[in-house]
Amino acid sequence: MTVTDDFLAHNEAYAATFDPAAFTPAPRKHVAIVTCMDARIPVFAVLGLQAGDAHIIRNAGGIVSDDVLRSLLISQRSLGTREIVLMHHTNCGLLTFRDDELAAALEAETGHRPTFPLGAITDLDASVRDSLTRLRTSPFLPHRDAIRGFIFDVQTGRLREVV
Amino acid sequence: MTVTDDFLAHNEAYAATFDPAAFTPAPRKHVAIVTCMDARIPVFAVLGLQAGDAHIIRNAGGIVSDDVLRSLLISQRSLGTREIVLMHHTNCGLLTFRDDELAAALEAETGHRPTFPLGAITDLDASVRDSLTRLRTSPFLPHRDAIRGFIFDVQTGRLREVV
Repeated sequence: MTVTDDFLAHNEAYAATFDPAAFTPAPRKHVAIVTCMDARIPVFAVLGLQAGDAHIIRNAGGIVSDDVLRSLLISQRSLGTREIVLMHHTNCGLLTFRDDELAAALEAETGHRPTFPLGAITDLDASVRDSLTRLRTSPFLPHRDAIRGFIFDVQTGRLREVV
Repeated sequence: MTVTDDFLAHNEAYAATFDPAAFTPAPRKHVAIVTCMDARIPVFAVLGLQAGDAHIIRNAGGIVSDDVLRSLLISQRSLGTREIVLMHHTNCGLLTFRDDELAAALEAETGHRPTFPLGAITDLDASVRDSLTRLRTSPFLPHRDAIRGFIFDVQTGRLREVV
Protein backbone atom coordinates (compact mmCIF):
# COMPACT_ATOMS: atom_id res chain seq x y z
CA MET A 1 0.00 0.00 0.00
CA THR A 2 1.63 3.23 -1.14
CA VAL A 3 0.87 6.72 0.10
CA THR A 4 -0.88 7.25 -3.23
CA ASP A 5 -3.24 4.32 -2.54
CA ASP A 6 -4.02 5.88 0.81
CA PHE A 7 -4.88 9.17 -0.97
CA LEU A 8 -7.31 7.32 -3.25
CA ALA A 9 -9.13 5.85 -0.25
CA HIS A 10 -9.41 9.35 1.24
CA ASN A 11 -10.66 10.69 -2.07
CA GLU A 12 -13.61 8.25 -2.01
CA ALA A 13 -14.70 9.83 1.27
CA TYR A 14 -14.17 13.33 -0.11
CA ALA A 15 -16.26 12.61 -3.21
CA ALA A 16 -19.08 11.15 -1.11
CA THR A 17 -19.94 14.56 0.33
CA PHE A 18 -18.66 16.73 -2.53
CA ASP A 19 -20.78 19.70 -3.58
CA PRO A 20 -19.74 21.19 -6.94
CA ALA A 21 -21.92 24.25 -6.27
CA ALA A 22 -19.39 25.30 -3.63
CA PHE A 23 -16.91 26.25 -6.35
CA THR A 24 -16.67 28.55 -9.35
CA PRO A 25 -13.97 28.41 -12.05
CA ALA A 26 -12.85 31.97 -11.20
CA PRO A 27 -11.27 32.40 -7.75
CA ARG A 28 -13.71 34.18 -5.44
CA LYS A 29 -11.12 36.63 -4.05
CA HIS A 30 -9.60 37.40 -7.47
CA VAL A 31 -6.13 36.70 -6.17
CA ALA A 32 -3.23 34.44 -7.13
CA ILE A 33 -0.70 33.19 -4.57
CA VAL A 34 2.84 32.28 -5.68
CA THR A 35 4.86 30.36 -3.11
CA CYS A 36 7.25 27.49 -2.45
CA MET A 37 6.29 23.80 -2.55
CA ASP A 38 7.72 23.48 0.99
CA ALA A 39 5.76 21.22 3.36
CA ARG A 40 6.05 23.81 6.14
CA ILE A 41 3.80 26.32 4.34
CA PRO A 42 0.13 25.41 4.82
CA VAL A 43 -0.91 28.26 2.53
CA PHE A 44 -4.60 28.27 3.40
CA ALA A 45 -4.00 28.43 7.15
CA VAL A 46 -1.13 30.92 6.84
CA LEU A 47 -3.30 33.42 4.92
CA GLY A 48 -6.77 32.56 6.16
CA LEU A 49 -7.83 31.32 2.73
CA GLN A 50 -10.89 29.17 2.07
CA ALA A 51 -11.17 26.59 -0.70
CA GLY A 52 -12.21 28.38 -3.88
CA ASP A 53 -10.72 31.75 -2.95
CA ALA A 54 -7.50 31.82 -4.96
CA HIS A 55 -5.25 30.38 -7.60
CA ILE A 56 -2.32 28.67 -5.90
CA ILE A 57 0.95 28.46 -7.83
CA ARG A 58 3.84 26.64 -6.16
CA ASN A 59 7.33 25.54 -7.20
CA ALA A 60 10.70 25.10 -5.52
CA GLY A 61 11.30 28.47 -3.87
CA GLY A 62 8.27 30.35 -5.10
CA ILE A 63 10.54 32.09 -7.60
CA VAL A 64 9.00 33.69 -10.70
CA SER A 65 9.98 31.34 -13.51
CA ASP A 66 8.62 31.42 -17.06
CA ASP A 67 6.13 28.77 -15.94
CA VAL A 68 4.88 31.04 -13.14
CA LEU A 69 4.46 33.91 -15.63
CA ARG A 70 2.57 31.54 -17.92
CA SER A 71 0.27 30.53 -15.08
CA LEU A 72 -0.32 34.11 -13.93
CA LEU A 73 -1.12 35.44 -17.38
CA ILE A 74 -3.78 32.74 -17.74
CA SER A 75 -5.00 33.48 -14.21
CA GLN A 76 -5.40 37.20 -14.93
CA ARG A 77 -6.55 37.11 -18.56
CA SER A 78 -8.91 34.15 -18.43
CA LEU A 79 -10.00 33.85 -14.81
CA GLY A 80 -10.16 37.38 -13.50
CA THR A 81 -7.50 37.56 -10.79
CA ARG A 82 -6.25 41.06 -9.98
CA GLU A 83 -3.88 40.72 -7.03
CA ILE A 84 -0.71 38.66 -6.66
CA VAL A 85 0.80 37.59 -3.33
CA LEU A 86 4.40 36.35 -3.69
CA MET A 87 5.79 34.43 -0.72
CA HIS A 88 9.28 32.98 -0.20
CA HIS A 89 10.33 31.51 3.15
CA THR A 90 13.21 31.21 5.59
CA ASN A 91 15.33 28.04 5.60
CA CYS A 92 14.48 27.41 1.92
CA GLY A 93 16.24 24.52 0.20
CA LEU A 94 17.25 26.86 -2.64
CA LEU A 95 19.65 28.57 -0.22
CA THR A 96 21.69 25.34 0.11
CA PHE A 97 23.23 24.98 -3.35
CA ARG A 98 24.56 26.90 -6.32
CA ASP A 99 23.20 26.35 -9.82
CA ASP A 100 26.56 25.50 -11.36
CA GLU A 101 27.46 23.04 -8.59
CA LEU A 102 24.13 21.23 -8.79
CA ALA A 103 24.23 21.18 -12.59
CA ALA A 104 27.72 19.66 -12.47
CA ALA A 105 26.62 17.05 -9.91
CA LEU A 106 23.62 16.10 -12.05
CA GLU A 107 25.82 15.82 -15.13
CA ALA A 108 28.35 13.67 -13.28
CA GLU A 109 25.63 11.34 -11.98
CA THR A 110 23.35 11.08 -15.00
CA GLY A 111 25.39 12.08 -18.04
CA HIS A 112 22.91 14.88 -18.70
CA ARG A 113 23.18 18.55 -17.84
CA PRO A 114 19.90 20.36 -17.22
CA THR A 115 19.02 22.94 -19.88
CA PHE A 116 16.87 24.90 -17.42
CA PRO A 117 17.94 27.15 -14.53
CA LEU A 118 17.93 25.44 -11.12
CA GLY A 119 16.83 28.51 -9.18
CA ALA A 120 19.44 28.69 -6.40
CA ILE A 121 19.03 31.68 -4.06
CA THR A 122 21.82 33.42 -2.16
CA ASP A 123 19.77 36.18 -0.50
CA LEU A 124 16.07 35.80 0.29
CA ASP A 125 15.17 39.49 0.24
CA ALA A 126 17.02 39.98 -3.04
CA SER A 127 15.25 36.95 -4.51
CA VAL A 128 11.83 38.30 -3.54
CA ARG A 129 12.74 41.66 -5.08
CA ASP A 130 13.97 39.98 -8.27
CA SER A 131 10.73 38.04 -8.53
CA LEU A 132 8.65 41.17 -7.84
CA THR A 133 10.53 43.01 -10.58
CA ARG A 134 9.91 40.17 -12.99
CA LEU A 135 6.17 40.35 -12.26
CA ARG A 136 5.92 44.13 -12.32
CA THR A 137 7.72 44.43 -15.65
CA SER A 138 6.00 41.57 -17.46
CA PRO A 139 3.99 42.87 -20.42
CA PHE A 140 1.87 39.72 -20.27
CA LEU A 141 0.20 40.54 -16.95
CA PRO A 142 -2.70 42.98 -17.41
CA HIS A 143 -2.89 43.77 -13.65
CA ARG A 144 0.35 44.82 -12.01
CA ASP A 145 -0.69 47.42 -9.44
CA ALA A 146 -1.45 45.01 -6.58
CA ILE A 147 1.61 42.74 -6.42
CA ARG A 148 3.28 42.34 -3.04
CA GLY A 149 6.12 40.16 -1.80
CA PHE A 150 6.70 38.48 1.56
CA ILE A 151 9.00 36.12 3.41
CA PHE A 152 7.29 33.50 5.59
CA ASP A 153 9.30 32.69 8.72
CA VAL A 154 9.11 28.93 9.31
CA GLN A 155 10.10 29.45 12.97
CA THR A 156 7.37 31.98 13.82
CA GLY A 157 4.65 31.46 11.21
CA ARG A 158 4.77 35.17 10.46
CA LEU A 159 4.96 37.02 7.13
CA ARG A 160 7.38 39.90 6.64
CA GLU A 161 6.84 42.17 3.65
CA VAL A 162 9.76 42.87 1.31
CA VAL A 163 9.60 46.34 -0.22
CA MET B 1 -8.26 47.41 2.15
CA THR B 2 -7.06 44.83 -0.37
CA VAL B 3 -7.43 41.07 -0.13
CA THR B 4 -3.70 41.00 0.65
CA ASP B 5 -4.19 43.27 3.68
CA ASP B 6 -6.89 40.89 4.87
CA PHE B 7 -4.42 37.98 4.54
CA LEU B 8 -1.91 39.85 6.71
CA ALA B 9 -4.49 40.29 9.46
CA HIS B 10 -5.24 36.55 9.31
CA ASN B 11 -1.52 35.79 9.42
CA GLU B 12 -1.17 37.61 12.76
CA ALA B 13 -3.71 35.19 14.23
CA TYR B 14 -1.96 32.22 12.63
CA ALA B 15 1.43 33.24 14.04
CA ALA B 16 -0.04 33.71 17.53
CA THR B 17 -0.58 29.96 17.91
CA PHE B 18 2.13 28.72 15.55
CA ASP B 19 4.22 25.74 16.65
CA PRO B 20 7.34 25.22 14.52
CA ALA B 21 7.84 21.78 16.08
CA ALA B 22 4.82 20.61 14.09
CA PHE B 23 6.87 20.72 10.88
CA THR B 24 10.04 19.21 9.43
CA PRO B 25 11.79 20.41 6.27
CA ALA B 26 11.29 17.00 4.63
CA PRO B 27 7.67 16.08 3.85
CA ARG B 28 6.47 13.43 6.31
CA LYS B 29 4.84 11.23 3.65
CA HIS B 30 7.79 11.49 1.23
CA VAL B 31 5.49 12.47 -1.59
CA ALA B 32 5.23 15.35 -4.06
CA ILE B 33 1.91 16.39 -5.59
CA VAL B 34 1.82 18.12 -8.99
CA THR B 35 -1.49 19.73 -9.88
CA CYS B 36 -3.25 22.75 -11.35
CA MET B 37 -3.50 26.15 -9.65
CA ASP B 38 -7.31 25.93 -10.08
CA ALA B 39 -9.40 27.25 -7.18
CA ARG B 40 -11.68 24.19 -7.38
CA ILE B 41 -8.93 21.79 -6.22
CA PRO B 42 -8.53 21.96 -2.43
CA VAL B 43 -5.60 19.54 -2.63
CA PHE B 44 -5.41 18.72 1.08
CA ALA B 45 -9.09 17.82 1.35
CA VAL B 46 -9.17 15.99 -1.99
CA LEU B 47 -6.34 13.65 -0.94
CA GLY B 48 -6.70 13.61 2.84
CA LEU B 49 -3.36 15.39 3.30
CA GLN B 50 -2.26 17.07 6.52
CA ALA B 51 -0.01 20.13 6.70
CA GLY B 52 3.61 18.93 6.53
CA ASP B 53 2.87 15.73 4.60
CA ALA B 54 3.89 16.66 1.07
CA HIS B 55 5.54 19.00 -1.37
CA ILE B 56 2.85 20.78 -3.37
CA ILE B 57 3.73 21.95 -6.88
CA ARG B 58 1.04 23.81 -8.81
CA ASN B 59 0.88 25.68 -12.11
CA ALA B 60 -1.71 26.32 -14.81
CA GLY B 61 -2.86 22.81 -15.72
CA GLY B 62 -0.54 20.77 -13.56
CA ILE B 63 1.49 20.03 -16.69
CA VAL B 64 5.11 18.92 -16.31
CA SER B 65 7.12 21.96 -17.39
CA ASP B 66 10.86 22.45 -16.95
CA ASP B 67 10.04 24.31 -13.75
CA VAL B 68 8.12 21.31 -12.41
CA LEU B 69 11.07 19.02 -13.22
CA ARG B 70 13.37 21.49 -11.45
CA SER B 71 11.13 21.45 -8.39
CA LEU B 72 10.81 17.65 -8.35
CA LEU B 73 14.52 17.00 -8.70
CA ILE B 74 15.15 19.22 -5.66
CA SER B 75 12.26 17.52 -3.84
CA GLN B 76 13.67 14.03 -4.45
CA ARG B 77 17.42 14.71 -4.20
CA SER B 78 17.43 17.14 -1.28
CA LEU B 79 14.26 16.45 0.65
CA GLY B 80 13.65 12.74 0.36
CA THR B 81 10.39 12.43 -1.56
CA ARG B 82 9.87 9.09 -3.33
CA GLU B 83 6.37 9.17 -4.81
CA ILE B 84 4.79 11.61 -7.28
CA VAL B 85 1.05 12.16 -7.68
CA LEU B 86 0.19 14.04 -10.89
CA MET B 87 -3.31 15.46 -11.09
CA HIS B 88 -5.02 17.34 -13.94
CA HIS B 89 -8.72 18.19 -13.84
CA THR B 90 -11.87 18.40 -15.92
CA ASN B 91 -13.00 21.81 -17.22
CA CYS B 92 -9.40 23.09 -17.14
CA GLY B 93 -8.73 26.54 -18.57
CA LEU B 94 -5.94 25.09 -20.71
CA LEU B 95 -8.59 23.31 -22.79
CA THR B 96 -10.01 26.68 -23.93
CA PHE B 97 -7.21 28.05 -26.15
CA ARG B 98 -4.43 27.07 -28.52
CA ASP B 99 -0.86 28.15 -27.92
CA ASP B 100 -0.45 29.88 -31.27
CA GLU B 101 -3.75 31.76 -30.93
CA LEU B 102 -2.97 33.00 -27.43
CA ALA B 103 0.60 33.90 -28.40
CA ALA B 104 -0.74 35.91 -31.34
CA ALA B 105 -3.29 37.67 -29.13
CA LEU B 106 -0.60 38.56 -26.58
CA GLU B 107 1.66 39.88 -29.33
CA ALA B 108 -1.15 41.97 -30.83
CA GLU B 109 -2.03 43.46 -27.44
CA THR B 110 1.42 43.99 -25.94
CA GLY B 111 3.91 44.05 -28.81
CA HIS B 112 5.68 41.08 -27.23
CA ARG B 113 5.40 37.41 -28.08
CA PRO B 114 6.04 34.99 -25.23
CA THR B 115 9.24 32.96 -25.57
CA PHE B 116 7.83 30.17 -23.40
CA PRO B 117 5.18 27.56 -24.21
CA LEU B 118 1.67 28.43 -23.04
CA GLY B 119 0.64 24.88 -22.20
CA ALA B 120 -2.67 24.52 -24.07
CA ILE B 121 -4.26 21.07 -23.79
CA THR B 122 -6.54 19.45 -26.37
CA ASP B 123 -7.08 16.09 -24.65
CA LEU B 124 -6.87 15.66 -20.88
CA ASP B 125 -5.95 11.97 -20.85
CA ALA B 126 -3.27 12.54 -23.48
CA SER B 127 -1.91 15.46 -21.49
CA VAL B 128 -1.66 13.37 -18.31
CA ARG B 129 0.11 10.64 -20.28
CA ASP B 130 2.51 13.18 -21.83
CA SER B 131 3.32 14.56 -18.39
CA LEU B 132 3.77 11.05 -16.95
CA THR B 133 6.15 10.19 -19.79
CA ARG B 134 8.13 13.34 -19.15
CA LEU B 135 8.49 12.38 -15.48
CA ARG B 136 9.24 8.70 -16.08
CA THR B 137 11.95 9.46 -18.63
CA SER B 138 13.66 12.33 -16.80
CA PRO B 139 17.24 11.39 -15.89
CA PHE B 140 17.15 14.04 -13.15
CA LEU B 141 14.61 12.22 -10.97
CA PRO B 142 16.23 9.49 -8.87
CA HIS B 143 12.87 7.88 -7.98
CA ARG B 144 10.60 7.03 -10.89
CA ASP B 145 8.90 3.80 -9.86
CA ALA B 146 5.98 5.37 -7.95
CA ILE B 147 4.62 8.02 -10.31
CA ARG B 148 0.89 7.94 -10.99
CA GLY B 149 -1.42 10.26 -12.91
CA PHE B 150 -5.05 11.22 -12.31
CA ILE B 151 -7.83 13.47 -13.53
CA PHE B 152 -9.86 15.22 -10.82
CA ASP B 153 -13.50 15.64 -11.80
CA VAL B 154 -14.65 19.09 -10.65
CA GLN B 155 -18.29 17.95 -10.85
CA THR B 156 -17.93 14.88 -8.61
CA GLY B 157 -14.79 15.49 -6.53
CA ARG B 158 -13.49 12.10 -7.65
CA LEU B 159 -10.09 11.10 -9.03
CA ARG B 160 -9.80 8.85 -12.07
CA GLU B 161 -6.46 7.23 -12.76
CA VAL B 162 -4.91 7.56 -16.23
CA VAL B 163 -2.84 4.54 -17.19
